[in-house]
Amino acid sequence: MSHEKFSSVIETLHECMTACNHCYDSCLQEDDVKMMAECIRLDRECADICGYLEQALVRGTPFVSDLAKVCATICEACGNECKQHDHKHCQQCADACFKCAEECKKLAS
Amino acid sequence: MSHEKFSSVIETLHECMTACNHCYDSCLQEDDVKMMAECIRLDRECADICGYLEQALVRGTPFVSDLAKVCATICEACGNECKQHDHKHCQQCADACFKCAEECKKLAS
Amino acid sequence: MSHEKFSSVIETLHECMTACNHCYDSCLQEDDVKMMAECIRLDRECADICGYLEQALVRGTPFVSDLAKVCATICEACGNECKQHDHKHCQQCADACFKCAEECKKLAS
Amino acid sequence: MSHEKFSSVIETLHECMTACNHCYDSCLQEDDVKMMAECIRLDRECADICGYLEQALVRGTPFVSDLAKVCATICEACGNECKQHDHKHCQQCADACFKCAEECKKLAS
Repeated sequence: MSHEKFSSVIETLHECMTACNHCYDSCLQEDDVKMMAECIRLDRECADICGYLEQALVRGTPFVSDLAKVCATICEACGNECKQHDHKHCQQCADACFKCAEECKKLAS
Repeated sequence: MSHEKFSSVIETLHECMTACNHCYDSCLQEDDVKMMAECIRLDRECADICGYLEQALVRGTPFVSDLAKVCATICEACGNECKQHDHKHCQQCADACFKCAEECKKLAS
Repeated sequence: MSHEKFSSVIETLHECMTACNHCYDSCLQEDDVKMMAECIRLDRECADICGYLEQALVRGTPFVSDLAKVCATICEACGNECKQHDHKHCQQCADACFKCAEECKKLAS
Repeated sequence: MSHEKFSSVIETLHECMTACNHCYDSCLQEDDVKMMAECIRLDRECADICGYLEQALVRGTPFVSDLAKVCATICEACGNECKQHDHKHCQQCADACFKCAEECKKLAS
């Protein structure tokens, strides 16, 4: 069954979605919000695609590879942005994004 | 922080979303799909609202109580439909829905 | 059929979702992003619930009233935030939000 | 601005999402639901990705091409399934899917 076959990547997607939404929420509360604008934008992009793929995998989507590919691209872009910022929430988010990008790449291939 | 404060209910929402999408996927593969039509419909409703609330909680939504209330209503309806069917995926889904409805009711009050 | 019965409110939800996402995108590009932080947050909340309800109405959700009620609350909050800012995208978003809140209230009752 | 630049494809995505959700809802009410199981599944996949891309375009996503590519793939698959069924909702959905697949392919290139 889909949800068992993909249980590891579903967990990773869930962690990445959580890290991105937490980073988004925290960035909006930083003193220098302007510096975080691109991070806020990419956090939302990444949270949305991870949340999407997570649901799609559990419901047995026939489009695993196509969706995983675009998810890997977005996770990587978000990770690259986040790792430039010293905030703890950004560094943790970068880690979650890169881990998720790796798992999505495997899924896509 | 939102994602820590709500970590228990986020986990429960995630389990319910997973159970509903798995039940949806399984119902579509049953011999008697017609008998499962309402279950399919409610599984999707419930998966979508649980996935929605999960994300909203992590991103620090100001609408926790309003969203939790509607989520409880939908989880309960889905649980009531699922428990009428003997399939293992339906029974497991009913359990996840009722547990999630309870946690959402607490969150709403 | 659901999608015909609700065609007017679906159009209004779609316009509100579009206005909110456009306002979100524009706020992130303003010079004073910090001043727009709450607007960014509420734009996303409102875009997400409008997009959600729009889909739910077309697919024949049994939870029209419950969902419309929470959507009205979120639209109203977003409109109240947006109308405090002079940017054209905020003023247009406020109009779309208040219009949508009204239609959702009717749907909820 | 994103929402003006993409207004034509956003309209097409919206029509496709609406057609898919209407087809999904109608399939669940058909006498022979089993025959429609794959149509139900693909309608949901297609509605979800169209709704997703629609929002992403309006919020100025940096991932237009990647997302449009996967959306074109899913629209085409849904259209191919729907056109096999004589129901009016399936035929209309197939038309909407093929039109949307074409616009997404242009966007992706």
